[in-house]
Amino acid sequence: MPITVCRTEHFNAAHRLHNPAWTDERNAQVFGKCNNPNYHGHNYNLTVRLTGDVDPETGYLYDLKRLSDLIKAQVLDRYDHRNLNLDTEEFAHLNPTAENIAVVIWQRLRPHLDARLGLSVTLYETDRNFVEYYG
Amino acid sequence: MPITVCRTEHFNAAHRLHNPAWTDERNAQVFGKCNNPNYHGHNYNLTVRLTGDVDPETGYLYDLKRLSDLIKAQVLDRYDHRNLNLDTEEFAHLNPTAENIAVVIWQRLRPHLDARLGLSVTLYETDRNFVEYYG
Amino acid sequence: MPITVCRTEHFNAAHRLHNPAWTDERNAQVFGKCNNPNYHGHNYNLTVRLTGDVDPETGYLYDLKRLSDLIKAQVLDRYDHRNLNLDTEEFAHLNPTAENIAVVIWQRLRPHLDARLGLSVTLYETDRNFVEYYG
Amino acid sequence: MPITVCRTEHFNAAHRLHNPAWTDERNAQVFGKCNNPNYHGHNYNLTVRLTGDVDPETGYLYDLKRLSDLIKAQVLDRYDHRNLNLDTEEFAHLNPTAENIAVVIWQRLRPHLDARLGLSVTLYETDRNFVEYYG
Amino acid sequence: MPITVCRTEHFNAAHRLHNPAWTDERNAQVFGKCNNPNYHGHNYNLTVRLTGDVDPETGYLYDLKRLSDLIKAQVLDRYDHRNLNLDTEEFAHLNPTAENIAVVIWQRLRPHLDARLGLSVTLYETDRNFVEYYG
Amino acid sequence: MPITVCRTEHFNAAHRLHNPAWTDERNAQVFGKCNNPNYHGHNYNLTVRLTGDVDPETGYLYDLKRLSDLIKAQVLDRYDHRNLNLDTEEFAHLNPTAENIAVVIWQRLRPHLDARLGLSVTLYETDRNFVEYYG
Repeated sequence: MPITVCRTEHFNAAHRLHNPAWTDERNAQVFGKCNNPNYHGHNYNLTVRLTGDVDPETGYLYDLKRLSDLIKAQVLDRYDHRNLNLDTEEFAHLNPTAENIAVVIWQRLRPHLDARLGLSVTLYETDRNFVEYYG
Repeated sequence: MPITVCRTEHFNAAHRLHNPAWTDERNAQVFGKCNNPNYHGHNYNLTVRLTGDVDPETGYLYDLKRLSDLIKAQVLDRYDHRNLNLDTEEFAHLNPTAENIAVVIWQRLRPHLDARLGLSVTLYETDRNFVEYYG
Repeated sequence: MPITVCRTEHFNAAHRLHNPAWTDERNAQVFGKCNNPNYHGHNYNLTVRLTGDVDPETGYLYDLKRLSDLIKAQVLDRYDHRNLNLDTEEFAHLNPTAENIAVVIWQRLRPHLDARLGLSVTLYETDRNFVEYYG
Repeated sequence: MPITVCRTEHFNAAHRLHNPAWTDERNAQVFGKCNNPNYHGHNYNLTVRLTGDVDPETGYLYDLKRLSDLIKAQVLDRYDHRNLNLDTEEFAHLNPTAENIAVVIWQRLRPHLDARLGLSVTLYETDRNFVEYYG
Repeated sequence: MPITVCRTEHFNAAHRLHNPAWTDERNAQVFGKCNNPNYHGHNYNLTVRLTGDVDPETGYLYDLKRLSDLIKAQVLDRYDHRNLNLDTEEFAHLNPTAENIAVVIWQRLRPHLDARLGLSVTLYETDRNFVEYYG
Repeated sequence: MPITVCRTEHFNAAHRLHNPAWTDERNAQVFGKCNNPNYHGHNYNLTVRLTGDVDPETGYLYDLKRLSDLIKAQVLDRYDHRNLNLDTEEFAHLNPTAENIAVVIWQRLRPHLDARLGLSVTLYETDRNFVEYYG
């Protein structure tokens, strides 16, 4: 029977929501305060879930210390204490909404995990606003 | 690939669990302290989840500010600081258990959302007691 | 050197804010939604703090199991799943604001504790609204 | 339409991760600090989810007080304030990883619940490390 | 006997720690990742505490709805979804550390509150890093 | 005006409450489940508070990264994933109650901090049981 193991990490980043193909008026109308040209920021919480079979020798599905290290290498080292729009390639031309950040994080983690493992991510932009992506 | 966006809101309400078709003794036996004729109350936390496709122009599945406004109009304006049994039509003849409140909230939100969007709700009666409804 | 030990408990209750010496208009104006004649309710969280010296034989200032039992006997058994206005003597003629509830709880606990122990209570009406009373 | 009701309980236990078929070196390498021969411990939080149909007479899927009592009898009375490796039969020869503890808890609860009810458990070893098992 | 009432609000902002009188090397050495020239951000949680006497007519020390409105007008409307360094006068020439933000918030609130009321603020930059200021 | 900065860290440890000068019966009577000879454990959360003046050059009272490093060196490296009774000198002959652990942590941190800084610690044994020590 498959089981799921989960690890939560967090990072602090600045961002701005903006579509360069639109006028300033439309950007302000659609994105409101999130369109502030000088950026704002969040303490993002990220939960990564892996689904698969338990190894009978270890009793582990996946060592959560290894999962934490993978998230640090692939996500935190790139986004923590950064400006997502200015400091990353991923969001130079992609709007850093919670939806897009969650998808990009999933895509960054997927190649580093065995294909037999299921992967999903939950990204909390605030305690009350969050996004789940199952790939 | 579908994604899910989530918004949490809260409301404070009084309620009482009671089946008018039963004797007082049976009500007391089944519902215990929750049957108190003078009511008790909770800080309810409500998480609403929408599942669908991200709009490539906005990077949004659904603007969480709009979802917050919808929850306020359909749920909080009716239930916050109210007595569910006495102040609402929905629970005048329906026992306001967490299960029934979750189903009613789902039914109130469903007509206001595009049919292509999946909808589920989680209702926390306390931090330790909660209900999930997927429709 | 004195130390402080703390225990958190919770109870669920209905209440209404109302001053019977006032007109309905003034009550509505001052207390807003909290004046709803049919009551509303909360999951109250209560933290009780005792300050004093550690007993060198036990390493305890006060056994937190005993403190939990005392809070249950003096507070939870009276207020949990009750209507504070209708089901208690204390709030029959005293407005059950968070301030007044905290003071009443402090007064109920004080006689059961050695005079050498300092006592304070924090009462959370919601996660965002709370009251501290030091006696 | 099915609905899910959830109850969270917690217990405090000591454990050690160890595979007796391995050398001490391999155990230390795989399990790191969790292999400490003198044990360490956790405040485990456990959420149990039941899925099924609401009883129209009660408005309950399952009385959460009964679910709490069942978890206490089957899980907390066995594991709370215990050493999982030394004080239980289940983990005398099974490594008490979060994965294995979740599966064992699921197996202990399953026979006590009607076959029409779906059952899943989430076990939090810490706020950041947790496991979900659906059977 | 005095009592304390508390209200928590939150805002999301970008900032950068930097002393313009120093070289880039010294700024990087002292402020580390927080010195990123493109800014990073946080979900700030702010708890405001008022201490004084309960009004016997209302049972309130201070209406928490009014306190919430005051915090919104003096703090959230200025800082929420803003860049503290670029979008505010206060931090144009003052390093927006948690310490300085807490002091500035205290100074902004103080003139709007009766001198008989004690005032303190707690500012959470993250769940694990926070600052308390009593004036 | 003095200000207070706070940092929270956590560690996972096993312990047992026991007074070797007492009979087994008295130990069982006083310490109940906490006296289990095979130990149990907790996820301890520790908040360390420093009080003093803000350095006008940095805007810091104390760099919270340095405070985190100090707590790791003096507390977590000694207690995390350890058995407090068996793996530490401090609790070889001192009962590891929350009170005593908090005092010992305070004493371990005090010599590493400038005498002008005030120091207090809060130790959470569980979410509901915690201890504050001001020295």
